[in-house]
Amino acid sequence: MTFQNDLFLRALKRQPTERTPVWLMRQAGRYLPEYNATRKKAGDFMSLCKNPELACEVTLQPIDRFGLDAAILFSDILTIPDAMGLGLFFEQGEGPKFTKRIETDADIVALGRLDPTVELRYVADAVSTIKKALNRRVPLIGFSGSPWTLACYMINGGGSGDDFLNVRKWMYSRPEALQQLLEKLSVAVSDYLIMQIEAGADAVMVFDSWGGFLPEGHFERFSQQHIQSIIERVRAASIAIRKNQGHTGGQPTPIIAFVKGGGQWLESIAATGADAVGLDWTTNLGKARELIGSECALQGNIDPACLLGTPQHIQAEVARTLESFGRVTQGVGHVFNLGHGISQFTPPDNVACLVEAVANYSKKLR
Amino acid sequence: MTFQNDLFLRALKRQPTERTPVWLMRQAGRYLPEYNATRKKAGDFMSLCKNPELACEVTLQPIDRFGLDAAILFSDILTIPDAMGLGLFFEQGEGPKFTKRIETDADIVALGRLDPTVELRYVADAVSTIKKALNRRVPLIGFSGSPWTLACYMINGGGSGDDFLNVRKWMYSRPEALQQLLEKLSVAVSDYLIMQIEAGADAVMVFDSWGGFLPEGHFERFSQQHIQSIIERVRAASIAIRKNQGHTGGQPTPIIAFVKGGGQWLESIAATGADAVGLDWTTNLGKARELIGSECALQGNIDPACLLGTPQHIQAEVARTLESFGRVTQGVGHVFNLGHGISQFTPPDNVACLVEAVANYSKKLR
Repeated sequence: MTFQNDLFLRALKRQPTERTPVWLMRQAGRYLPEYNATRKKAGDFMSLCKNPELACEVTLQPIDRFGLDAAILFSDILTIPDAMGLGLFFEQGEGPKFTKRIETDADIVALGRLDPTVELRYVADAVSTIKKALNRRVPLIGFSGSPWTLACYMINGGGSGDDFLNVRKWMYSRPEALQQLLEKLSVAVSDYLIMQIEAGADAVMVFDSWGGFLPEGHFERFSQQHIQSIIERVRAASIAIRKNQGHTGGQPTPIIAFVKGGGQWLESIAATGADAVGLDWTTNLGKARELIGSECALQGNIDPACLLGTPQHIQAEVARTLESFGRVTQGVGHVFNLGHGISQFTPPDNVACLVEAVANYSKKLR
Repeated sequence: MTFQNDLFLRALKRQPTERTPVWLMRQAGRYLPEYNATRKKAGDFMSLCKNPELACEVTLQPIDRFGLDAAILFSDILTIPDAMGLGLFFEQGEGPKFTKRIETDADIVALGRLDPTVELRYVADAVSTIKKALNRRVPLIGFSGSPWTLACYMINGGGSGDDFLNVRKWMYSRPEALQQLLEKLSVAVSDYLIMQIEAGADAVMVFDSWGGFLPEGHFERFSQQHIQSIIERVRAASIAIRKNQGHTGGQPTPIIAFVKGGGQWLESIAATGADAVGLDWTTNLGKARELIGSECALQGNIDPACLLGTPQHIQAEVARTLESFGRVTQGVGHVFNLGHGISQFTPPDNVACLVEAVANYSKKLR
């Protein structure tokens, strides 16, 4: 279970690291010419996700090019509702959409229990293919959308221009039905992440892209408690999997929780029991460290827009981000990342500039 | 300078009130059949804004129907860039758009100093028409978008699906040009609000709809400092205006600052010197009161989605919101409002339910 580079896992466990590890949300993507070449071979985005060899190819591209400290499975946060029969598709220049959406209580009742090892087998195949190809260079991250975020898309049928107002409406008109949907999704996400761990994922991440739209006092009921139950299930299962795989005294697989717009409820997010909390670009890393840094590692959080700027600004922002976390001392962990997914308009050289700046500057903060 | 109902102004000044005053962002709007009837007479949205008599008519409609405690000028946050020649228009079912947008440094230099008493005279006319029609029943609120929010629309040419990434990019590539634009807008917004006060506005509000997309540590430079300079200018001018109008010892006109998504930097927002800070639905009123409640009044912050729910849920959420602010004691002020604009799908009866619940329940919290 050793890696050529285990900085990422050590930072998640809040163990000493000689420099701050770095990976980037959506690091395999359209800003890379090699990605676009592979994507052309696959056809559309979902065909690329569903092809383990090509998904493996694009997963490794940013590792090869930039020497990042973790790989992340090439997939989408919405594979679960797709496997549940809602028909995920992407229109040119637009976000994800579903051909069917959840409208009635009966639609929720009709959602059967998903067996990810059947309906999402292509994901397990991608994970094991990538693991083999990585050959222990760096750890591999698996992931899923959070129940609340999946529910937002499933009820709305796609993205939203009004902060998912019509999904929030359910909280005030049929909260029981909404909770039923969220509970079904919690089970599905847990099973799905467990499958990814079984296939070889070394860490998993839950993306709550729309948790920040929940009202004060409702985040806990409609998102946090479900992420917490996923973490409990996945952690327990991961210990059993490690033991089965012959790792005696197997440590649980680290779990990262990311809530975009969740800067006001960091304590609640940490209370999910996540090993690390991801932060978007609006949250001060130093304040977050003060609040929850002794309970979990922190991941983030440079503004992805800075990668569209000049090298001078990128270096300055990297320094500012690392300084806002502060000196990496005993018992704290920091994984450098963007505060949100990388833009398709990012010049690849700017990513190289960022990665180099993180390496150079973070060594000085030890 | 007396009003039949001055609860709103007293709450802004943190003076005792027998119940919590309430008004609703976008209270004159498409959810009201009487609004839609007037709108039909006017033609499109901007024609309605530019017609003082009809703008007056729709401004008074929610006051007549619900007995709200403040009227707000019917207008748009983007009248300034429109007057600067960018050509504001609204497409069916979409947000605001501009026919021209700011792309180069030369575009910024070319923006001349606006004289709102000429280019935005229709707004002054609307304010004085509404003031006459209100006949001192309740105070009238004037408003503008904040410099940062105006700049977002002006650079992007309309709304954004990616948190104004291409505007944030300016911070990392040509921050000086962006600051130049923001400074021009600060002057224009100040002049514009001063004109509204001269025409009779009893309070003014600055809407920073997109301040919450600014990165941690950049909000202060790119939004907060400009709101602060507007408040300083407008406050000083308003004292002079009151004296000119014969109100000796004239008090300055109260100013409200609302930053959507600004819950993580309440202290910065309060540091603008605003008399009241508006909160969106993600911020806990009690925590906000603890942080800034002795410096300014608070306005907000029930989730507008709750108005799409059942009367029982509306009543429960009203109680929860009032309780989270807590007992209204000496030196604090609370104006009840939504955390964002009212939805066009709101049943008017639900608004009546909310207004009644605020009146009844808030009396008990004194």
